[in-house]
Amino acid sequence: MTKHATDTARRIPYAGLTQADDFIGRHIGPSAADQAEMLGSLGLASMGELIEKVVPASILARSPLALGQPRSEPRVLEDLKRIAAGNRVMKSCIGQGYYDCHTPTVILRNLLENPSWYTAYTPYQPEISQGRLEVLLNFQTMVSDLTGMDIANASLLDEATAAAEAMTFCRRLAKNKANRFFVSGDCHPQTLDVVRTRAEPLGIEVIVGDERTDLAAVDCFGVLLQYPGTSGEVGDLASIADQAHAKGALLAVAADLLALTLLRPPGECGADVVVGSAQRFGVPLGFGGPHAAYFATREAYKREMPGRLIGVSVDAQGRKAYRLALQTREQHIRREKASSNICTAQALLAMMAAMYASYHGPSGLATIARRVHRLAATLARGLRELDLEVPTHVFFDTITVRTGRRTDEIHQAARARGINLREIDDAHVGISLDETSGVPEVEALWAAFAPAGLRAPGFEAIEAGTDDRFPEALQRTSAFLTHPVFNTYHSETDLLRYLRSLADKDLALDRTMIPLGSCTMKLNATTEMIPVTWKEFGGLHPFAPIEQARGYLQLVTELEQMLCACTGYDAFSLQPNSGAQGEYAGLLAIRGWHASRGEGHRNVCLIPSSAHGTNPASAQMVGMKVVVVACDENGNVDLEDLRKKASQHAADLAAIMITYPSTHGVFEEEVAEVCAIVHEHGGQVYIDGANLNAQVGLALPGAYGGDVSHLNLHKTFCIPHGGGGPGVGPIGVKAHLAPFLPGHRRFERRTEGAVSAAPWGSASVLPITWAYIALMGADGLKRATEVAILSANYIARRLAPHYPILYTGVHGMVAHECIIDLRPIKDRTGVSAEDVAKRLIDFGFHAPTMSFPVPGTLMIEPTESEPKAELDRFCDAMICIREEIDAVERGAFGRDDNPLKNAPHTALDVVASEWTRPYSREQAAYPVPSLRQSKYWPPVGRVDNVYGDRNLVCSCPPMSDYEGGQAGAPARQSLADRG
Amino acid sequence: MTKHATDTARRIPYAGLTQADDFIGRHIGPSAADQAEMLGSLGLASMGELIEKVVPASILARSPLALGQPRSEPRVLEDLKRIAAGNRVMKSCIGQGYYDCHTPTVILRNLLENPSWYTAYTPYQPEISQGRLEVLLNFQTMVSDLTGMDIANASLLDEATAAAEAMTFCRRLAKNKANRFFVSGDCHPQTLDVVRTRAEPLGIEVIVGDERTDLAAVDCFGVLLQYPGTSGEVGDLASIADQAHAKGALLAVAADLLALTLLRPPGECGADVVVGSAQRFGVPLGFGGPHAAYFATREAYKREMPGRLIGVSVDAQGRKAYRLALQTREQHIRREKASSNICTAQALLAMMAAMYASYHGPSGLATIARRVHRLAATLARGLRELDLEVPTHVFFDTITVRTGRRTDEIHQAARARGINLREIDDAHVGISLDETSGVPEVEALWAAFAPAGLRAPGFEAIEAGTDDRFPEALQRTSAFLTHPVFNTYHSETDLLRYLRSLADKDLALDRTMIPLGSCTMKLNATTEMIPVTWKEFGGLHPFAPIEQARGYLQLVTELEQMLCACTGYDAFSLQPNSGAQGEYAGLLAIRGWHASRGEGHRNVCLIPSSAHGTNPASAQMVGMKVVVVACDENGNVDLEDLRKKASQHAADLAAIMITYPSTHGVFEEEVAEVCAIVHEHGGQVYIDGANLNAQVGLALPGAYGGDVSHLNLHKTFCIPHGGGGPGVGPIGVKAHLAPFLPGHRRFERRTEGAVSAAPWGSASVLPITWAYIALMGADGLKRATEVAILSANYIARRLAPHYPILYTGVHGMVAHECIIDLRPIKDRTGVSAEDVAKRLIDFGFHAPTMSFPVPGTLMIEPTESEPKAELDRFCDAMICIREEIDAVERGAFGRDDNPLKNAPHTALDVVASEWTRPYSREQAAYPVPSLRQSKYWPPVGRVDNVYGDRNLVCSCPPMSDYEGGQAGAPARQSLADRG
Repeated sequence: MTKHATDTARRIPYAGLTQADDFIGRHIGPSAADQAEMLGSLGLASMGELIEKVVPASILARSPLALGQPRSEPRVLEDLKRIAAGNRVMKSCIGQGYYDCHTPTVILRNLLENPSWYTAYTPYQPEISQGRLEVLLNFQTMVSDLTGMDIANASLLDEATAAAEAMTFCRRLAKNKANRFFVSGDCHPQTLDVVRTRAEPLGIEVIVGDERTDLAAVDCFGVLLQYPGTSGEVGDLASIADQAHAKGALLAVAADLLALTLLRPPGECGADVVVGSAQRFGVPLGFGGPHAAYFATREAYKREMPGRLIGVSVDAQGRKAYRLALQTREQHIRREKASSNICTAQALLAMMAAMYASYHGPSGLATIARRVHRLAATLARGLRELDLEVPTHVFFDTITVRTGRRTDEIHQAARARGINLREIDDAHVGISLDETSGVPEVEALWAAFAPAGLRAPGFEAIEAGTDDRFPEALQRTSAFLTHPVFNTYHSETDLLRYLRSLADKDLALDRTMIPLGSCTMKLNATTEMIPVTWKEFGGLHPFAPIEQARGYLQLVTELEQMLCACTGYDAFSLQPNSGAQGEYAGLLAIRGWHASRGEGHRNVCLIPSSAHGTNPASAQMVGMKVVVVACDENGNVDLEDLRKKASQHAADLAAIMITYPSTHGVFEEEVAEVCAIVHEHGGQVYIDGANLNAQVGLALPGAYGGDVSHLNLHKTFCIPHGGGGPGVGPIGVKAHLAPFLPGHRRFERRTEGAVSAAPWGSASVLPITWAYIALMGADGLKRATEVAILSANYIARRLAPHYPILYTGVHGMVAHECIIDLRPIKDRTGVSAEDVAKRLIDFGFHAPTMSFPVPGTLMIEPTESEPKAELDRFCDAMICIREEIDAVERGAFGRDDNPLKNAPHTALDVVASEWTRPYSREQAAYPVPSLRQSKYWPPVGRVDNVYGDRNLVCSCPPMSDYEGGQAGAPARQSLADRG
Repeated sequence: MTKHATDTARRIPYAGLTQADDFIGRHIGPSAADQAEMLGSLGLASMGELIEKVVPASILARSPLALGQPRSEPRVLEDLKRIAAGNRVMKSCIGQGYYDCHTPTVILRNLLENPSWYTAYTPYQPEISQGRLEVLLNFQTMVSDLTGMDIANASLLDEATAAAEAMTFCRRLAKNKANRFFVSGDCHPQTLDVVRTRAEPLGIEVIVGDERTDLAAVDCFGVLLQYPGTSGEVGDLASIADQAHAKGALLAVAADLLALTLLRPPGECGADVVVGSAQRFGVPLGFGGPHAAYFATREAYKREMPGRLIGVSVDAQGRKAYRLALQTREQHIRREKASSNICTAQALLAMMAAMYASYHGPSGLATIARRVHRLAATLARGLRELDLEVPTHVFFDTITVRTGRRTDEIHQAARARGINLREIDDAHVGISLDETSGVPEVEALWAAFAPAGLRAPGFEAIEAGTDDRFPEALQRTSAFLTHPVFNTYHSETDLLRYLRSLADKDLALDRTMIPLGSCTMKLNATTEMIPVTWKEFGGLHPFAPIEQARGYLQLVTELEQMLCACTGYDAFSLQPNSGAQGEYAGLLAIRGWHASRGEGHRNVCLIPSSAHGTNPASAQMVGMKVVVVACDENGNVDLEDLRKKASQHAADLAAIMITYPSTHGVFEEEVAEVCAIVHEHGGQVYIDGANLNAQVGLALPGAYGGDVSHLNLHKTFCIPHGGGGPGVGPIGVKAHLAPFLPGHRRFERRTEGAVSAAPWGSASVLPITWAYIALMGADGLKRATEVAILSANYIARRLAPHYPILYTGVHGMVAHECIIDLRPIKDRTGVSAEDVAKRLIDFGFHAPTMSFPVPGTLMIEPTESEPKAELDRFCDAMICIREEIDAVERGAFGRDDNPLKNAPHTALDVVASEWTRPYSREQAAYPVPSLRQSKYWPPVGRVDNVYGDRNLVCSCPPMSDYEGGQAGAPARQSLADRG
């Protein structure tokens, strides 16, 4: 069992005096002995032999990754602490869409820092996701209530991309055929930048102006306003709405949620869509992200809404249950016909914001808003007493101050007091207050602004004379957040238990493997997560003076170098904050490059039929025309068809988008040939990095033909999935494309082409990837890849006698995932891939990926982090399920009444006195003995998708719906009693 | 539902611009509206009216507590950060029983910082404690294996008190009648101090000497050795064991667990008891605590072993289940006949240490030990090459260096390099290396020690020539930690899931109220917990130079002042690290005071019959004679009997120990009179602070007659219970007793009378209490007390129609807890208090305190933190249970086959195909509808106590015991398959 007796006597080698590579064995699940056993089961003597049989020799990298030695966990934390010390966290009154706030510590510890929440996957399997679905529904309810709109999604990547989505949304829905989009000059500048980037390839003309004076003359399909404006001014939405509607255009409003507790909501002023950020609801600034954005609209437009939408449905027993609604809108179904390529949301951050609202409640939020507003009003009055001109008339928390020639001096005076102000221009300064502001801050601001010789006024006197009432027409009078979920959990004990009870409903990596093909649910190690919530990373405003962000700059530079080393690319952009956005940014780079060579007409994008749905959706966003390339029966790109299509479109060929290893989980032998064909015809090669976990350390996409790739840091590089986001999708490019990486107004190198609001996207989670690479080093990363491949092949070998395995390589091996085919079984027995997926829940497993890339199949990706015992537990479950299928086939169970069709089984169902199933209660709940020791009980039975879409409800249902103690209700047991 | 519409319009008052008192409403569960409703149900109009009826006017404090205004959560974190910055964390090579180590971050986040673990109570109710019982059993197994002993407990407070326990243990078991205890001069000095303190009142003479030369001449009942010695030297235990046994004495060894992975364990050398600290197994230094100590002995002595012991038993269905074993040894049963007053353990820290062992496994621990040892050997060789004398011959990680006149210079040189060395004396320096040591540290030490002009040697050359083999007789050859629990969870994924699965078996405050009378299970707020794991608090060695600990000194000083303000005492000692140890320290102060007045003969301690069992046990530890004072039928002290006993023992009266409000949960009207009577007869008044939660802000024990009290910071002052510890039991005294507070070799004021190894006991958890008091302020603390009283009375009022309520005050009110009497019910129906307690588990509740202070009753203490909805859920459960009892009484259920006798019901039981109970499965599992939304399933049925004590097994049972998928096995589902 243990070798310590001999170990003790053995002298420790010199190299052993450091603990540098200890982490590799913590990250990789199977021990060395397990690995040997697994190789043995495949008839292989060594890992090298396995890799030889899986990865084509032509693409195998010859040298190790150009990364340092692995570092120990304490060392990595020390190194990151040192990097973090390069950031200087000042009080930021910069505003511009980002506001400091207090993350309630109970939410910080028990949600953001809790693996039950951050390691969860997107809630595609609703039965094991009721907890996070409930919180996301709370988010939607919160947004609908505050904005005054009918329906809201959960969620988008940031306010700027949400505004860009609003633009295309308006175009789809406008009653006119205009191709102009009017954007208020009082919008946040980064929003305008992203809107412009998005507009250009779509042929939309963006007109910027003062809506009060300029709108009348513009023939546009939509109008975007900021509420309150970036200057702080609160404008009158209603009259603009009327104007827009009169010309057949739609009105979009980017609104501040906290302000909406006091101000008349856009929905009551005629807005058609409202977008914005939920950052200030308890989410750290984090140098720009990740934060959740929202998108709300009218009932009538719901089917055009981008992003994820949670809906209420019923389960097989008629109990309320939550699920993702209207999924047919999404890119993985509609592909190039999708209205957006949005896939990843900012789920974890949306949940934080929703919990913040539950904790404070409507009255608490209004109190925070009134505090901030009154402080701002007092601040403005004091400044005016100091003879400063404050041109902002009606404001919530932000004012613009005319500072004239004293501008620089005032910035310096404020910084000397630890405060950053917004640099509007040479003669104006912006000040935004927030939840963390207090009297001393206002006094410090007065001191900083006071002209020489003038004394700052006394706070109490100024405050007493301050009138902070809004004009009546702008005052909010309608109720919001009236649902009990926002009026119950106001003590810490209450909220803690609510969080726990929700987490208990869900399955995440802290309880089970999540063997999702193409999604790479691997260990998110604690050491990688710890720096994320350090104040040095969390407290920085994205537009803070760059000299205060040296730590971030170092982190970003080093991480870019690390990613170059891992991929063979020459340059990286960390701006895209999801994989789909990375695709979009990558295609923009290709587009920009073609244009720079006078070949702007190249607009054909070849996409194999097996591609991720985001690929064609992204292509259409950059104005490209998708041409589908066939795949052969093994899922490989059909070279003949490729040659034909490339040649046929040679004049207009822009790019090919391929995934490698393929979405079928195979290293195509001919990938270099595929790249060469496209290059020959003048196209660029986009390699989707979704499957990079199969090749880090083994092969470099930048070496075997790729011009650009996005990497899913939340897949291969350990950023957790967070129940559906944040994703992080940086792109790597060969040198010739580097000038076309996304720009940003904060960069010197390039200011155009911003795809995100923040310069480095989801900056505050980047330490996770930095830490992972530093911990693993070149050797560890390679070993991880090898074990990921080994584990997939081990599963394939164990399951092969029981299920057909689709798509193996030339040596009969799979890459890092394997597909099992349920279609023949379904034909014979009626048991579908979905039935198997739901039955796995009874065994305590999250299902593998269903029906992608091939309908009727399950795609299993174990990753390197799963211990062999867990792989075996999974295989045992699958084999047990196969025996149940056999029982259906031989007629022992009915085709419609068997443990598979009835899965998952809730505790309520198996405990019910009446039991009429043709199998025992034990068979239902404890099909294998190990479940008797540890059993996950799904809170609801199989969720009815059709019912949910036919009876769409996307905000919290009234408590009366839960009466009678049905499952799926908000978790606090007493709610039902009080409803 | 919400008042925000009007709120919005209301102008925020100036005071509202700060958020200072926001936390009070977070800590207190019932909202203002709830409180009004609860008062209404009692027929009261105001809180004032309630307090008038509950607290005797004679003791009501007239002015608010002398504390500042409440502070907001962010402010408190800032203030504590500033205090923490006063500590300077250097690398400590001081050793002396404390060694730096790496807390694996997965354990840090998911155990130490996880409320599922830290808010759990002592596992007296085994059915809802299987997770933490398993880990504590792992701890015992780990200690037994490493020490080579038969049986170990889990756990003691620190190594020094464990050594003191070993002394009295030896005396009880020695074959001779000697009253001398021989302590090796190579023991840690703080251990010797605590042993001396303990020995003196018991009339034991402590002889200190060199065991190799001095032992032969000493007639002693026991011998205590340090292994390795405090100097670093590893002595030969076997020959000393023979000597000790030859004279009828027992051998106790204080041993270092990490060293025992390489060194022959004491159990193989003849030791009878082995004690020590498990600190270096992943627990931060924390300026001295809390850490878990261990106590291991031979099978034959198990019934004399102090502290908690986990054992294996079976449940009602014959499945393996864990429980606390041999509880009849403990003070709450044996009272003054107890061998120790130990009650609180260091459970949370013991669990950390056990998890550290599971994570590293035997091979990983040996690797760490070999690294440390080889570094130390290389260090010593290098120092010798620098011409320094290293008199330590055989060592593990610690050496003594003869530094002569260069001593000061070397300390300074080391400090300049960020390293603290041990100050042995003017001519000797000690160096201990540890898990965090590395090559650069050894090089820095060489540089610091190198005489002028000599260069430190090169590491590689020195290392290559270093022979670090132990003499053969000292080498460990036996296996350890061979159980799968130490050989399975070596990847982070594995350990994370193990932690989660164990937490899921247990009930803690994150899922339910724990209404334990006298134990005050209230909110442990996240903001209070956060600073505990800051490096500035965690990284300090308890014997680091005091100028490096200015932050701690400030914290301690301020906390002492806060506690004085809360109690009316004049001085505080924070040294005692449990309530029982506080009692002992308090009685020592009384004893010291009497002696200082020439009245050392006063040795009678009056104790009411209702007292906590620790009271008489503590009295016997200071050599006092317990005289029991009767209580009247209301549980109040019988004044007549008190007068009689006080007068009868007037000449020898030392003290009275009372609890206030009484253990019966009533404010005795005559408490001032009780105090006066004792004072009149020359005695001192010890007021047990267990029930202080009923009086903070309302009454001051130091004002109405107390001379000394201990406070349970883990009850009233929010330090979490941690599954059975740490406890913190500081004592407050009136000025005349201040000179007799515990001393410590680190203090200037008094060096005698240390009761703990570390000067400020469990220093690193003190920020919790500091934060709680700062957050609440005087007003908040008072309101908390009022709501605690209100909630108890609300429960009493709701339950009174269903159960007899015992012991109410003159106005029919209870204090902060209420006792319900099950005895008449049991007489009529056979349903016992235990049956009700176990049935409550089916409702998802931890039982109230059972059979204390009155057998056959349940004592309910809701605390102020429980939301009203949770109080109602509890009352609903109790009322439902009462209906079930009625069904038994009317014969609907059999007396031995009903939902109460069969409780708790596991999922396996109610899912079983065969169901022969006279009630339905739903009645068993879902007796109230709210359970259908959220259900806790106990992992085992009712645990058989008798079986467990008759068939005592106190280490991890072999895996074969779990075959067949029975519950209660180590949680990893696959273990059973691999066993």
